[in-house]
Amino acid sequence: MWDKEESLNREELQAIQLERLQATVKRAYERVPYYRELLDEQGVTPADIRSLEDVRLLPFTTKDVLREQYPYGLFAVPLEEIVRLHASSGTTGKPTVVGYTKQDLKTWANLIARIVTMAGVERQDIAQICFGYGLFTGAFGLHYGLEEVGVTIVPASTGNSEKQIMLMQDFGTTVLVSTPSYALYLAEVARGMGVEPRSLGLRIGLFGSEPWSEEIRQQIEAEWGLFATDNYGLSEVMGPGVAGECQARQGLHINEDHFLVELINPETGEPVGPGEQGELVFTPLTKEALPILRYRTRDLATLDYAPCACGRTLVRMSRVCGRSDDMLVIRGVNVFPTQVESVLLTVPAVAPHYQLVVRKKGFLDDLEVRVEIKEEYFTDDYKKLVEIEEEIRHKLQNVLSIGTKVSLAAPGSIERFTGKARRVLDLRQEGKGRKNEGTADRQ
Amino acid sequence: MWDKEESLNREELQAIQLERLQATVKRAYERVPYYRELLDEQGVTPADIRSLEDVRLLPFTTKDVLREQYPYGLFAVPLEEIVRLHASSGTTGKPTVVGYTKQDLKTWANLIARIVTMAGVERQDIAQICFGYGLFTGAFGLHYGLEEVGVTIVPASTGNSEKQIMLMQDFGTTVLVSTPSYALYLAEVARGMGVEPRSLGLRIGLFGSEPWSEEIRQQIEAEWGLFATDNYGLSEVMGPGVAGECQARQGLHINEDHFLVELINPETGEPVGPGEQGELVFTPLTKEALPILRYRTRDLATLDYAPCACGRTLVRMSRVCGRSDDMLVIRGVNVFPTQVESVLLTVPAVAPHYQLVVRKKGFLDDLEVRVEIKEEYFTDDYKKLVEIEEEIRHKLQNVLSIGTKVSLAAPGSIERFTGKARRVLDLRQEGKGRKNEGTADRQ
Repeated sequence: MWDKEESLNREELQAIQLERLQATVKRAYERVPYYRELLDEQGVTPADIRSLEDVRLLPFTTKDVLREQYPYGLFAVPLEEIVRLHASSGTTGKPTVVGYTKQDLKTWANLIARIVTMAGVERQDIAQICFGYGLFTGAFGLHYGLEEVGVTIVPASTGNSEKQIMLMQDFGTTVLVSTPSYALYLAEVARGMGVEPRSLGLRIGLFGSEPWSEEIRQQIEAEWGLFATDNYGLSEVMGPGVAGECQARQGLHINEDHFLVELINPETGEPVGPGEQGELVFTPLTKEALPILRYRTRDLATLDYAPCACGRTLVRMSRVCGRSDDMLVIRGVNVFPTQVESVLLTVPAVAPHYQLVVRKKGFLDDLEVRVEIKEEYFTDDYKKLVEIEEEIRHKLQNVLSIGTKVSLAAPGSIERFTGKARRVLDLRQEGKGRKNEGTADRQ
Repeated sequence: MWDKEESLNREELQAIQLERLQATVKRAYERVPYYRELLDEQGVTPADIRSLEDVRLLPFTTKDVLREQYPYGLFAVPLEEIVRLHASSGTTGKPTVVGYTKQDLKTWANLIARIVTMAGVERQDIAQICFGYGLFTGAFGLHYGLEEVGVTIVPASTGNSEKQIMLMQDFGTTVLVSTPSYALYLAEVARGMGVEPRSLGLRIGLFGSEPWSEEIRQQIEAEWGLFATDNYGLSEVMGPGVAGECQARQGLHINEDHFLVELINPETGEPVGPGEQGELVFTPLTKEALPILRYRTRDLATLDYAPCACGRTLVRMSRVCGRSDDMLVIRGVNVFPTQVESVLLTVPAVAPHYQLVVRKKGFLDDLEVRVEIKEEYFTDDYKKLVEIEEEIRHKLQNVLSIGTKVSLAAPGSIERFTGKARRVLDLRQEGKGRKNEGTADRQ
């Protein structure tokens, strides 16, 4: 375990949380005009925060607030104390920008050190970071945290996948940091070069930045022979390092001494009951530069406070099951791309590459699931292919309760992604159907 | 001044250098089998290094040695003490790989802090780093050093040039870190967006990674209204941070307490006389992971030990005038691309974008200089264009002593580079003519 704070009893933890929450609210109130005005309007003062439950007196913060306050409106320190700026991709206009003080960077590196340590990474490891370094927080977050542990870092960045394989081979890489979809793609590339992925000796995968299913995990592990772990974070709250999986892999431990977590009903904003799925809301408790109150992540998950086999007492969040705003509504039915993925991967003939295409046919929504066939199932026998299509359609119908069009695609024909996979193509009326951009700045 | 070591008197400096040289040779001898064998063969022991001049007893190290010892053969520490790996681009095969201990990274950050401070950068600045982060040492070198100073870093990386301009505008960038050619390209992009580059308020440019002339410096300064400085380094020795320009800009101060410099005749290996041009040879004096002895850079420069207006006593190297191995030999005459650049930029009609194309015509080498005309000189008046061509040809003849073919190109028609500019196209017999790849891993 990296820090003793990972295994405090809940009373000790909550005492730390309350003290830090009070300081954070005070900081936001005194230094960020946006929060001061909002709290004044609502008649709430920092002194009103007497218990952790009082967090509910505070307003939510959404991504739109960060956009409105672009670039520096929410900063609680003068610009000269900011040593790093990051920003979301901002494909649809201005990015959301986040800033860090020197202390914030130390905190960040330390929290990543926790999550990579809980995943099993050790100082002796050689970690190849295949995230794109830049304004995106993913690469730098993992980089500084792994450095803190003393791991040998290979800052490979993205692209040039054949060279990535060569580096793994020559440098003796033991830890892969990437998106889950890129890990699968790299395995394909290795095979194409005549290199058996398992022969490369990778030990641990630290995956993030996109939602993935248990089935994808199994495929990655089978391909590479590594132990695949999920980690979670988002730039508005800090970056990666908010939560990560330990070796028991029964959910992601949230670094609760640094992030107060709530789970709410995304429609009402009220807390959801124990065991129920809800939207994650975080209040960072130690951020100096950017003290965000109750950040609505739009990410849907469940929480589990039961003791963990690893000895950590930090609450565990489930893998993110979807986003309250990238949920597809197809003929009135809620469909999460990850649900579709889970179904697809139960079909042996199917390769883990797919795309969801949503169209308007007359007045009706139409969901087409394009999915790649594995090489060994790819055949001229039309009847066989129709059987596979039927099997998929049937399973999807069972899970989603709607009919879908299933189209099989040739091996290698569906686009591969070196960054975050874009798997939904929503071709319904402009501005009405959501594109899958909601996850563009997830970790 | 960042460190007191920048203004020691030469006796103090040389005492430090000798002590560190002795320790470095001992380290290389005891821990790197390659060096031990070589020194044993030559009958040299660490105890033979009694004065700084004794460095000449040591063997040179060339890039080929790093290639032969790929990847970890020259490392002086066990891999678990290595916390970072970098590598050259290796376009022609295996890259050369370099490693750093935690202490090496600290040293590196500190030396960059020196050179950015000597360029005038302050803690209050906002630095946009437009180098590609990855295995290349340029981006990470500047990044960690600017962080050490407490500057606000915008890790923009390369690409998406319109967004780069938007970031400068919105974030209030004051320092630009890039290649000189990318700085010029970005100015064009800004104008294309209707943004006057000078209006963006950039204050200082930290340029490196490719050779550039005084004329290019003047163009960059005129475009951006910033103070443009050169810095120098190479990954085999450390990365950027080996030398940098102070505000007096009379050469680049070499961090001599960390790098022992020699200037040699590239053909004989003997030291050149005072004021003469020669090849730079460096022996890093404080590197833990990779103690390289007498690294032959292939970079040609002069050295100036005279006192500097800034108060630093560190020797100054001239801007790199060329490389002993990317010099073009055209009909027996040595031609450096930077010589051509300097000539071109004295012609008012010429834009700072050009390409040298070398062909074999029968038995003779043929040098074509393709050069872009500025928008306002671009005309249908054939006679005017011929006059410009004649002017350029005449001036080149004077400087190079050979005739060249000059071809004018339309504004914007010559390739722009977001990374290192590739300005020489050598189409002579494969394997005989050198391509301009020699600088691919320069800082």
